[in-house]
Amino acid sequence: ALAAPAIAQEAPKVSWRLTSGFPKALDTIYGAAEDFAKYVSEATDGNFQIQPFPAGEIVPMPEAADTVAAGTVEMTHTASYYYWGKDPTYALGTAVPFGLNVRGLNAWNYDGGGIDMMNGFYNKQNLHAFPGGNTGCQMGGWWRKEITSLADLAGVKMRIGGMGGKVMEALGVVPQQIPGGEIYPALERGTIDAAEWVGPYDDEKLGLNKVAPYYYYPGFWEGGAMLHFMINLDKWNELTPAYKAIVESAAARANATMLAKYDYRNPAALRSLIAGGAQLKPYPDDVMAKAFEESNKLYATLSAENADFKTIFESQQAYRNEANLWNQVAEYTFDTFMIRNRPRG
Amino acid sequence: ALAAPAIAQEAPKVSWRLTSGFPKALDTIYGAAEDFAKYVSEATDGNFQIQPFPAGEIVPMPEAADTVAAGTVEMTHTASYYYWGKDPTYALGTAVPFGLNVRGLNAWNYDGGGIDMMNGFYNKQNLHAFPGGNTGCQMGGWWRKEITSLADLAGVKMRIGGMGGKVMEALGVVPQQIPGGEIYPALERGTIDAAEWVGPYDDEKLGLNKVAPYYYYPGFWEGGAMLHFMINLDKWNELTPAYKAIVESAAARANATMLAKYDYRNPAALRSLIAGGAQLKPYPDDVMAKAFEESNKLYATLSAENADFKTIFESQQAYRNEANLWNQVAEYTFDTFMIRNRPRG
Repeated sequence: ALAAPAIAQEAPKVSWRLTSGFPKALDTIYGAAEDFAKYVSEATDGNFQIQPFPAGEIVPMPEAADTVAAGTVEMTHTASYYYWGKDPTYALGTAVPFGLNVRGLNAWNYDGGGIDMMNGFYNKQNLHAFPGGNTGCQMGGWWRKEITSLADLAGVKMRIGGMGGKVMEALGVVPQQIPGGEIYPALERGTIDAAEWVGPYDDEKLGLNKVAPYYYYPGFWEGGAMLHFMINLDKWNELTPAYKAIVESAAARANATMLAKYDYRNPAALRSLIAGGAQLKPYPDDVMAKAFEESNKLYATLSAENADFKTIFESQQAYRNEANLWNQVAEYTFDTFMIRNRPRG
Repeated sequence: ALAAPAIAQEAPKVSWRLTSGFPKALDTIYGAAEDFAKYVSEATDGNFQIQPFPAGEIVPMPEAADTVAAGTVEMTHTASYYYWGKDPTYALGTAVPFGLNVRGLNAWNYDGGGIDMMNGFYNKQNLHAFPGGNTGCQMGGWWRKEITSLADLAGVKMRIGGMGGKVMEALGVVPQQIPGGEIYPALERGTIDAAEWVGPYDDEKLGLNKVAPYYYYPGFWEGGAMLHFMINLDKWNELTPAYKAIVESAAARANATMLAKYDYRNPAALRSLIAGGAQLKPYPDDVMAKAFEESNKLYATLSAENADFKTIFESQQAYRNEANLWNQVAEYTFDTFMIRNRPRG
């Protein structure tokens, strides 16, 4: 049918602020908030405006969730696991050590009831959230000295936070909290011995290969790090049904396009880092095995203490093991062949 | 800011038909068109209505692209590679043997200029398209007899179409074109020896494990099969900017949620198929190697004959090889560890 004449639609003027958990320098991540705002604006002829601000401009990142919950700022784009100190359940939104990879997180969220399950928790904090970007599996960080076994981790001062830091601590590492901008001088001066950041595309900007050449993988504490668009629950409830649908589709689109940016841009950055002296090293087997064991212990403790954590963790865990049963068949075998035959086609 | 009073927005009543390339029985795939229509309707307060019809109800699948190009039906949800007989460039939208996997396709489309590049081609056919769902890496099909080497493929009658069929033909297979509903009786009677369909979730519905127990992997001709929402170009151009944005976000969301459905539902189906007698078998090394070689020959021929194919294939190919350079580091190592330790956490 041809388009009929324009009619009036309920299109309230809405103007929101979004406090990002990230600086502009992380252009792919910060850009996901800009993309999201653009998708919403375009879908509403500019009637629903969301203005992103870099971390620190309105409030510093650690205060974002509380500020949004209080309604001072309408929404944030952040990593839920930044708030795991308030409640470990927050970590399950983003990534936990040896947790779901990107496809697992998307499958669990979009088809496994994950979005509703996480919102069951977020709503109690007066927040409502949707998946909003992923880095893919991160790297395991930059080390000044090579490590060949678990014993080499004893007393190492590593910049690593969250549950990854907790697990590394159980392996003998002394976790350090340092902002991104201070990692380079700290490694250069030897104040710290190692630091994790994200992956090639972001790490290259910090130039860490010049001061800590051993580039370890994988970042087993972030097999896929999912970000969220978190909205004040009352502001969310005030939206019209159409605006809610527009926000949800825009978030899903930003979730996909942010990962696409990392996936498309990481390879060239990896090449450049290697050319600049980075030495790729897999974490030694005993480090991986011990980290896995300690992670499972941590989950047992947290599950015993926190009912929300237990329910959501068990849902993710059950799917994770099933997902890997299937993943190893078609997908993994195809990837293995393509990796081995990479230079030949 | 609080919501201001409602104002008038240009919200034309639009009513479109969508002819799906798939039957309702493929509920995850057909469902992606239903989901897309729902996302668009919700975002427009029901002013933009898209009604999906199963393949054959308006026109049979092979006529969908022409029918949409002619404007008789506004849009289709289909696999672009169905139309590779008209022009092999169509195949590059969906999957080619040993092509990009899911993440590669998304990265190339959303950040590598793939959507615009494909639309440069589709627009010449009076179509405009967006990625709209993915199955993930498919399985390599059901075989009545075990195959242990390339020699066993000689003269085998296999239900397989498209470029996969072309490559299989170079390996000695006799490709057969059979609709999904006729695969079971053809395998049962021995009219054909093998058949490829999708993956565990869809294959289980056909019950092929009962008549051809050897379940091969990977479906190297579909390392990631991406569907498209294809729209008549004039109808697309008639949409308001807001409706265009809403369609694009809805397509991206459906692209993510369809893959999520497969990823979440395939594991249980795989278990059930194995319990029902399916025997999982990797394609022999010499089959994979020869198929890769023949695929590269085919691409050389098609590139020499077709400028659109050459441009787009080279763009995908260049990224594919770079993607696998990076993929093998963090992501693949993480997946390997998780697969090996699956029963332990």
